[in-house]
Amino acid sequence: MASATTSFTFARFPILQKQVFMESPNSFAFVNLKPIIPGHVLCAPKRVCSRFEDLTDREISDLMRLSKCVGQAVKQVYEAKSMTLSIQDGPEAGQTVPHVHVHVIPRKLSDFGGRNDEIYERLDEQCESERIARVDAEEGRRARTMDEMAEEAEVIRAAILRLGLFVD
Amino acid sequence: MASATTSFTFARFPILQKQVFMESPNSFAFVNLKPIIPGHVLCAPKRVCSRFEDLTDREISDLMRLSKCVGQAVKQVYEAKSMTLSIQDGPEAGQTVPHVHVHVIPRKLSDFGGRNDEIYERLDEQCESERIARVDAEEGRRARTMDEMAEEAEVIRAAILRLGLFVD
Repeated sequence: MASATTSFTFARFPILQKQVFMESPNSFAFVNLKPIIPGHVLCAPKRVCSRFEDLTDREISDLMRLSKCVGQAVKQVYEAKSMTLSIQDGPEAGQTVPHVHVHVIPRKLSDFGGRNDEIYERLDEQCESERIARVDAEEGRRARTMDEMAEEAEVIRAAILRLGLFVD
Repeated sequence: MASATTSFTFARFPILQKQVFMESPNSFAFVNLKPIIPGHVLCAPKRVCSRFEDLTDREISDLMRLSKCVGQAVKQVYEAKSMTLSIQDGPEAGQTVPHVHVHVIPRKLSDFGGRNDEIYERLDEQCESERIARVDAEEGRRARTMDEMAEEAEVIRAAILRLGLFVD
């Protein structure tokens, strides 16, 4: 499965180096094939482990500290003030890839169209709610090319350097 | 603000001892005034702190380890196999109480009615998605009495003892 360009595996899926934009001792952060909104990225433990309760204390701490840094980076890149952190732990919670992962999603009021009209905003909220809640679902979302993903990873990597973020 | 029965404050809201069912060195777990589904509880750092990026490494580690234990307990109490962990970090992400909190939500296929018919299941999914995504929203949800909350806290507390869960 692993090759010269494979950094990690996400369950059974190889993740290429150019998709990975940050790494900590026990975790890695990578861009998403089908983000629900721009900047929707994932953080996962390096060890393939399907459930949150099977992570060690060290892995939990490392994963969430990495998620914090990644949130800071994607908020800057995507000019967002807020973020959603979400873990769908188990199939009944919507998890489709059996490898623990934190969805890090930069959030702004203009998500999903940015209409300020109240009615449209409510409609947007509905749409958004559905999408946010189904972050693991793939249907209806376009798969990006590897070039698009590599480009995004590069931009986020630069922001991380600029911000001096790291997890030791 | 604090009184003999107040354990902690959640932003400006006092949280009574009988609502709190687990405590770690830096965090506490408490039952919810308006859970979106049974067993939807909250974990927060003891220090009033509005944003995830302002937590220390120690606080992040402690909060997420507590959330893991709480997830194990509510899954047992509510006979669920999965859980959702979610942090709405900032107003644009739907955060309404300016104090970091992890929503811990036990999840099962029967959430929101348990109809197995595909069409109904889809409808349920929509409904569920909306509710899950708007975990901080209060409208349309019934506020429980303190007795109801204290009773739930007692049941979860017993499960924690039974499971021997702790965060040091």
